[in-house]
Amino acid sequence: MHLVDRARAGDIRALARLLTLVESGSPDLRDVSADLVAHTGHAHIVGITGAPGVGKSTTTSALIKALRAEGRTVAVLAVDPSSPFSGGALLGDRVRMQDHACDPGVFIRSMASRGHLGGLSAATPQALRVLDACGFDVILVETVGVGQSEVEVMGQADTVLVLLAPGTGDAVQVAKAGILEIADIFVVNKADRDGVHNTTRELRSMISIGDRGPDAWVPEIVTTVATRAEGIEALVSTVERHRAWAARSGDLHSRRLERIRREIEALALDRLRDEFAGSRALAQRVLDGELDPYTAAQSLLD
Amino acid sequence: MHLVDRARAGDIRALARLLTLVESGSPDLRDVSADLVAHTGHAHIVGITGAPGVGKSTTTSALIKALRAEGRTVAVLAVDPSSPFSGGALLGDRVRMQDHACDPGVFIRSMASRGHLGGLSAATPQALRVLDACGFDVILVETVGVGQSEVEVMGQADTVLVLLAPGTGDAVQVAKAGILEIADIFVVNKADRDGVHNTTRELRSMISIGDRGPDAWVPEIVTTVATRAEGIEALVSTVERHRAWAARSGDLHSRRLERIRREIEALALDRLRDEFAGSRALAQRVLDGELDPYTAAQSLLD
Repeated sequence: MHLVDRARAGDIRALARLLTLVESGSPDLRDVSADLVAHTGHAHIVGITGAPGVGKSTTTSALIKALRAEGRTVAVLAVDPSSPFSGGALLGDRVRMQDHACDPGVFIRSMASRGHLGGLSAATPQALRVLDACGFDVILVETVGVGQSEVEVMGQADTVLVLLAPGTGDAVQVAKAGILEIADIFVVNKADRDGVHNTTRELRSMISIGDRGPDAWVPEIVTTVATRAEGIEALVSTVERHRAWAARSGDLHSRRLERIRREIEALALDRLRDEFAGSRALAQRVLDGELDPYTAAQSLLD
Repeated sequence: MHLVDRARAGDIRALARLLTLVESGSPDLRDVSADLVAHTGHAHIVGITGAPGVGKSTTTSALIKALRAEGRTVAVLAVDPSSPFSGGALLGDRVRMQDHACDPGVFIRSMASRGHLGGLSAATPQALRVLDACGFDVILVETVGVGQSEVEVMGQADTVLVLLAPGTGDAVQVAKAGILEIADIFVVNKADRDGVHNTTRELRSMISIGDRGPDAWVPEIVTTVATRAEGIEALVSTVERHRAWAARSGDLHSRRLERIRREIEALALDRLRDEFAGSRALAQRVLDGELDPYTAAQSLLD
C-alpha cells in the first residue's frame, strides 16, 4: 500500500515517515505531493505564537483537551527556528505535551530548521499538507519565540493566536517583531497575575488604531489561565467564530490561495537558485569594482 | 556634479539622498550603483547585535568616541526590522546618539523595513556600499532585537559583535535566534552587574564546543560598562585584531565574496518574481487539488 494511503488510513508510522521526508527536503516528496493535494482543505489551521514563557505549550495542551472533548482530532506542528544550543529547553516544552501521548486522536510533531535559512518556510506548508490530508480536524502550528521567521510560519495559518502574559514587557518585543499585526485573536494568558488589565487595555488601544472595512474581522482578546484551563472554552468558541467569519467573508479562501501562491513561487525560485552556479565569478568582478550588482544580476539571468 | 561625486566629496545631503534612494528601492539606484562599486572595499564593517536592553546604542556611542579619538571616521547604519508600533522607543535609542551630532567625521542613519519581507536584506548591502564609497573608515551596522532578520543583516559585516548583559536570560533568547554562532566577538556589557562571571563562563563553555581548524578565529569575550566607557579600548583592539586575522586568513575576502554572491542572486530572483504573474491561477488549481505545488512551480518556470 502506498505511503500516503497508509498514513490516511491511520498508520502513524507512515505519517511520521512522510513528515521526515518533508523535514529532510527529500526528492521523494515530489511523488507523494500530488496524492496529498487531492485530500486537503478540510483541516482548520490555527497558528499559536508569542514570546518564550507566555505559556504557549500549556495553552496548546489545554486547547487539545477542549477540542478532543468536542470529538475533534488534533495535530500539533511545533515549528522551531532555533539554534542547536537551545535543544534542551525546547525538549522540556514538548515533554509537557505528553498528557496526550496515549490519545490516537492527537498527533504531535516538532520540526526544526537545522540552521538553513528558508528551510522552515519551505517545509511548513508541506508538513501542514501531510497532516491535512491525513484528516485531522484541527492543526495547531506553534512557534518558539517571536521574530520574522515566526511571522512567516503564522502566514500558513487560517486563524492566528498571539499569546501574551501580563507584566512581562513582552508586548513591546512582540510589537517589534511585527507579530501584533498578524493576530486574529489575542490570548492574554496567566490572567491571574497582576497587570492583566493594563495588557488588555494596551491591546485594545492598539486594535482600535487599525483602519478596517465594515465587514472586517476585529481582533478579539481572550483572557486565560491555561494551567487551570480557565478561558479555554471561550478561546475555542472565538477560534470557531473566526473560522466561520473567514469562510463567509472569503478571507479563508484568499489566505489559502495567497499561501499556495507564495509556496509555488518559493519552489520555483529554489529551483532557479540551483542554476545560479555562475554567481561566484560575477561576485568576484563586483568585489573588484568592475561590475555593479544589478548588471551582475542581469548577466546571471541571461 | 554627479550625486555620487558630491557625496564622496563630503556633501552630507547628497549622501542622505543616496541612502533614501536605497531605502525606497528607487530605480535610479541602478545608475549610481556602477559609480559606487569602483570606490568600495575600504571600510571595515562591524555588526552589532543583541537583545533589546543590553546597551547596543550606548556601546555604539562609546565605540564611535574611541574610534574618533584614533582619527577614524565612522558611519552608523541602524537597521530596524520592526513594526510601526515600536517607532517611539527606537527614536529614543537614536536620540542618545546625538552626542556625535556635531562631529562631521560621524554619520548616523536609521533604516526601517516598513514591513515588507526581504526589504532590508536587499537594502542593507546597497546602503553599506554607499557609506563605504563615501570613505568612512568604519561602518557600524546595528540591529534592534534578535531574530532571523538580524542574523541576515549581520551576514553583511566583516566582524560581528554580539552583545549580552549578565543575568537577563538574554543568552537563551539569543541562542534560540541562532545569533551565538555568528559572533566573532562577544561583548558582555553592564559588567558591573551581578552575574557577569556566570555569563562569561557560559559563553566560554559554548565557545569551547565549536569544532575549528588550527588557524581559525576563536570568538573572544570582552567585558564592558559602556555607560562609563570601561572596556571599550579593549573592544576596539579586539575588533582590530579580528580584522587583521580576517585579512591574513582570507576570511575577509571570502565573506565579502559570499556576501556579494548572495546579493546578486537575490537581485536576480527579485527580477524573476516580477514575472511570476501566472502564479495565482496555478495556486487556484493547487487549492482545488488538481495540481501539486512542485508541478505548479515547474509550470511557472516553463
